[in-house]
Amino acid sequence: MNFLEYAIIVAGGRGRRMNSDIPKQFIPLAGFPILMHTLKAFFNYSPEINIILVLSEDSMKIWEHLCQQYEFDLPHTIQTGGLTRFDSVSKGLLKINTEGLVAVHDGVRPLVDPSIIRNSFDAAAKYGCGVVAVPVKESLRIKEENQNKTVDRSHYWLVQTPQTFVVSKLKNAFENAPHNQFTDDASVFEHAGHSVHLIEGSYQNIKITNSEDLIYAQALLSK
Amino acid sequence: MNFLEYAIIVAGGRGRRMNSDIPKQFIPLAGFPILMHTLKAFFNYSPEINIILVLSEDSMKIWEHLCQQYEFDLPHTIQTGGLTRFDSVSKGLLKINTEGLVAVHDGVRPLVDPSIIRNSFDAAAKYGCGVVAVPVKESLRIKEENQNKTVDRSHYWLVQTPQTFVVSKLKNAFENAPHNQFTDDASVFEHAGHSVHLIEGSYQNIKITNSEDLIYAQALLSK
Repeated sequence: MNFLEYAIIVAGGRGRRMNSDIPKQFIPLAGFPILMHTLKAFFNYSPEINIILVLSEDSMKIWEHLCQQYEFDLPHTIQTGGLTRFDSVSKGLLKINTEGLVAVHDGVRPLVDPSIIRNSFDAAAKYGCGVVAVPVKESLRIKEENQNKTVDRSHYWLVQTPQTFVVSKLKNAFENAPHNQFTDDASVFEHAGHSVHLIEGSYQNIKITNSEDLIYAQALLSK
Repeated sequence: MNFLEYAIIVAGGRGRRMNSDIPKQFIPLAGFPILMHTLKAFFNYSPEINIILVLSEDSMKIWEHLCQQYEFDLPHTIQTGGLTRFDSVSKGLLKINTEGLVAVHDGVRPLVDPSIIRNSFDAAAKYGCGVVAVPVKESLRIKEENQNKTVDRSHYWLVQTPQTFVVSKLKNAFENAPHNQFTDDASVFEHAGHSVHLIEGSYQNIKITNSEDLIYAQALLSK
């Protein structure tokens, strides 16, 4: 069975941590803006994918200008974001009017490998959901009131994106969510009663949130 | 009350992940070997500190050679390491024959800030132990058998080094440990019945384990 495939790329952030006037998703990385790398990764996975790019109202003009400047012509639909990540994904989902699979991905994770995107879609087709995560490498402790204790890190996973779902199930989960403070889409999906299927990602699929991350990403791309 | 202060710098690793014949602690970073940066950070914290450097048998000659080459003359004692990290720290502790405070630190964490070292010694003087850790930033999930579920990341901390302790308490904990597979010193200390006091570190205090980490460290040092 073939599913229509969608990707919601969330790029509503204002990049305040970068000490930069330009939102971080537009900062150049190895020759072109971070967000263009991210979109390209999804097209490298599949030229048939339907991309919905969620941008803040302020960013629309910048993005339009950048697309002209860099002659960026990969097809995508633009949607205005909301105040929170939850709101932005909700608005992105409004652009999808068929059943299918939808990957939600952070605009500032440009280094995602197309094979990981593929794995997340495959898992979503099979299990209803495929969420990329990596095992915790460091020793981990849990802090409760004035105590803290070691926990077995081998049971813990750090969640990344893409997080890919059956469209109707994710829409339903967002429509019935009790609040908009969830830190990721898997939590919204889980709250609706679905179980979450994790797939192993890569430590290199970093979220670029500060200038050191940017240097790290440049180093990875120059390899 | 003044305590004698020690630091055990653990540098027994062979650096197989670096695709390099040279153990990673000896790789140059901003002009001199990683391990020299690490030792310097502790001297920058306090010129009176007693440093015990734990090296594998194979590494002794390389380190000796590097100290000559770089005219590195900060005083330190050398101890041969063991097969595991636990064994290496145990052997380092054998070099300490007075009461005092001891910081255990990874040789490949050269970016530790002297103010963080200070905080860990201060906490050890006050609480018996001061373990550097940072809050988990990503969404976190726990995997158990075929299920996984979201956990509240705000309760979880990733452990780094230095981990600083009252000498007699740490020695006792190591001598009575039931096995040598602990992933860090705080776990050994905790297993002996002591409570662990966490202090907040920095995300920049990275452990250099691959070539991308090295590039990231270079970027941080060049700022």
